[in-house]
Amino acid sequence: MGALRVGVIGGGQLARMMTPPAINLAIDIKVLAEAEGSSAALATTMVGDYTQVEVVREFAKSVDVITFDHEHVPLAVLEALEAEGVSVQPPSKALAFAQNKLAMRKRLGALGLPMPDWAEIQDAETLDAFIEAHGGVAILKTPIGGYDGKGVRVVRSASDASDWLGNLAQYGGSLLAEEKVDFVRELAQLSARRPSGQFEPWPLVQTIQENGVCSVVLAPAPAVDQATLDRTAEIAKSVAEGLGVTGVLAVEMFEARDGRILINELAMRPHNSGHFSIEGSVTSQFEQHLRAVLDLPLGSAAPRAAHAVMVNLLGVDGQNDFVQAYSGALAAHPEAKVHTYGKSARAGRKMGHVTVVADSAEHALAEAQGASAVLLRG
Amino acid sequence: MGALRVGVIGGGQLARMMTPPAINLAIDIKVLAEAEGSSAALATTMVGDYTQVEVVREFAKSVDVITFDHEHVPLAVLEALEAEGVSVQPPSKALAFAQNKLAMRKRLGALGLPMPDWAEIQDAETLDAFIEAHGGVAILKTPIGGYDGKGVRVVRSASDASDWLGNLAQYGGSLLAEEKVDFVRELAQLSARRPSGQFEPWPLVQTIQENGVCSVVLAPAPAVDQATLDRTAEIAKSVAEGLGVTGVLAVEMFEARDGRILINELAMRPHNSGHFSIEGSVTSQFEQHLRAVLDLPLGSAAPRAAHAVMVNLLGVDGQNDFVQAYSGALAAHPEAKVHTYGKSARAGRKMGHVTVVADSAEHALAEAQGASAVLLRG
Repeated sequence: MGALRVGVIGGGQLARMMTPPAINLAIDIKVLAEAEGSSAALATTMVGDYTQVEVVREFAKSVDVITFDHEHVPLAVLEALEAEGVSVQPPSKALAFAQNKLAMRKRLGALGLPMPDWAEIQDAETLDAFIEAHGGVAILKTPIGGYDGKGVRVVRSASDASDWLGNLAQYGGSLLAEEKVDFVRELAQLSARRPSGQFEPWPLVQTIQENGVCSVVLAPAPAVDQATLDRTAEIAKSVAEGLGVTGVLAVEMFEARDGRILINELAMRPHNSGHFSIEGSVTSQFEQHLRAVLDLPLGSAAPRAAHAVMVNLLGVDGQNDFVQAYSGALAAHPEAKVHTYGKSARAGRKMGHVTVVADSAEHALAEAQGASAVLLRG
Repeated sequence: MGALRVGVIGGGQLARMMTPPAINLAIDIKVLAEAEGSSAALATTMVGDYTQVEVVREFAKSVDVITFDHEHVPLAVLEALEAEGVSVQPPSKALAFAQNKLAMRKRLGALGLPMPDWAEIQDAETLDAFIEAHGGVAILKTPIGGYDGKGVRVVRSASDASDWLGNLAQYGGSLLAEEKVDFVRELAQLSARRPSGQFEPWPLVQTIQENGVCSVVLAPAPAVDQATLDRTAEIAKSVAEGLGVTGVLAVEMFEARDGRILINELAMRPHNSGHFSIEGSVTSQFEQHLRAVLDLPLGSAAPRAAHAVMVNLLGVDGQNDFVQAYSGALAAHPEAKVHTYGKSARAGRKMGHVTVVADSAEHALAEAQGASAVLLRG
């Protein structure tokens, strides 16, 4: 067999969830994990430190293309491999924008894409001025290293960020201040793009966050007019093309009270907002990502059912195993599709998710939340 | 984690296709394969001879339940393990009927279930009398060892089977003669049953065979009245309970020209007639099999779409790789879900399959056959 070989850096749940479609399509998936016993252990072929170029180079020899479970591989490592002819998807030039929120804001600005007001912050005075100009409050972010609500803070005065301002070098020399958007809800536009250009968006979804972590996804987003759907798909296409993203791209957006659609965050990989697509779409984000990074034709992203609802299973301290709750959850919720990531629990950690597809959004939500509640009770 | 551990004997495509739902549910799937590099290589934890009790015993120590990719494990091996307290699902007492078609006919007869006329044959005279009583033709089967059209022959005289009649001992001492049913089509009723009794049937499907091998499956079977649907589900339940089957059971049936529904063959494992369920059902046969053998509550077997059509990819000699045809097939058929088993090709071998789900059966069939044609062209 002239096998298709994909190497995934990172052994988290995203690499884990790429494994089923890889099996279906006979794609030889290999994972470089940080440690033994990761969430993606079944597909792990190498354990090592992804910040070491020699480690990643050795791993790259065994595959046709390198892609990612996360966005934390140092650009220098990827640039070195690209210079040696390794196919890295998305490429380092795109990941540069995922790794640095300030670079991302500058690039989106150059592309004329809609986003919250923002400013580069290097001192307390500039920050206080930004806060004052935006109603006495701002969102302050470290440009590098943040995820799931980490590296993000609501500030009402520069004194709320004196620790960050005093250690600017470790955040790349600047902070990013953003307008605190008065939003009615959060939306996410998932899409995929091949290196050769084909672009395929999924229907727009609504995401519901709790404590900065995604909790529920409603697919499609309810009550959105066609103009908005066209607009969000167009935004995703502009981002993908303008930043040179390949594979799956998630564009997280605010729907502001004043009607503006504003880009919040980007993820250049399969994303929590797209887990619904495993059961909810003709082609899941994990299959599509594999197809895209191999530059194979993309599948249909059309829905398989009128509604899909995904509910995250967030870890609860002291409850280390919801597999033991399967009997109760599966008996009460026979439509629920349960995904368990094989991770040890800690409070707030993404341990799994439940998706229900149905003709009725209310039914799907009730069943997904019902199953989730039983599982988390343990 | 108090992991759920399932051991599958046999490294074929059925074990391979159990792997994705095992990943989803964090079920620790382990495969005992006949050789390295099997279709289920990713989940293979042991390579060995499943006819040796010491091999299977050693494998069984690593799991909570033993189940199967095929029905060929010697009963004596399974009986020995059961006597030692190993959970074998389906149990040896059920598999006895899958391994011996004559024992199966006798048991179905005792249960009063509908099937073709049949007779146990130990000599030419009895066979000729059976042929004469059934219009000059009969189907003759070796009770043990047949599959996919092997061990089955159309006979018009005992002289057509002199080789088998002269070597009766190697077929268990008898042959099985069956009425050659004048059927209008073939149907299959897939179901699952837990050791503790829960039973869940999928909707009835129609199977289309070519040269004794399944070629196309239409789900649901078109133009079947409710009485027949009720009847076929009831037949499957009677078989599962009457033969003590656990896990997935496929009951292959003839719809005779005179209207009778007659049981043809049984398979006590996920079956080709149920591959459509991966995309076509809320719960696939592979997930349901894992849940059933672990005695977990069964999932909904309801359809996800109005129609699902599955087309087998049967090997063509001299064409050893349809992965190279992905570009053409996936570009032309973005709705097609391609499953490739990672097996080397030989003529007629099941190499993969394509499923399309759609509102229209005609569209699903055209797309699945279209994708299949491109893939097989290579």
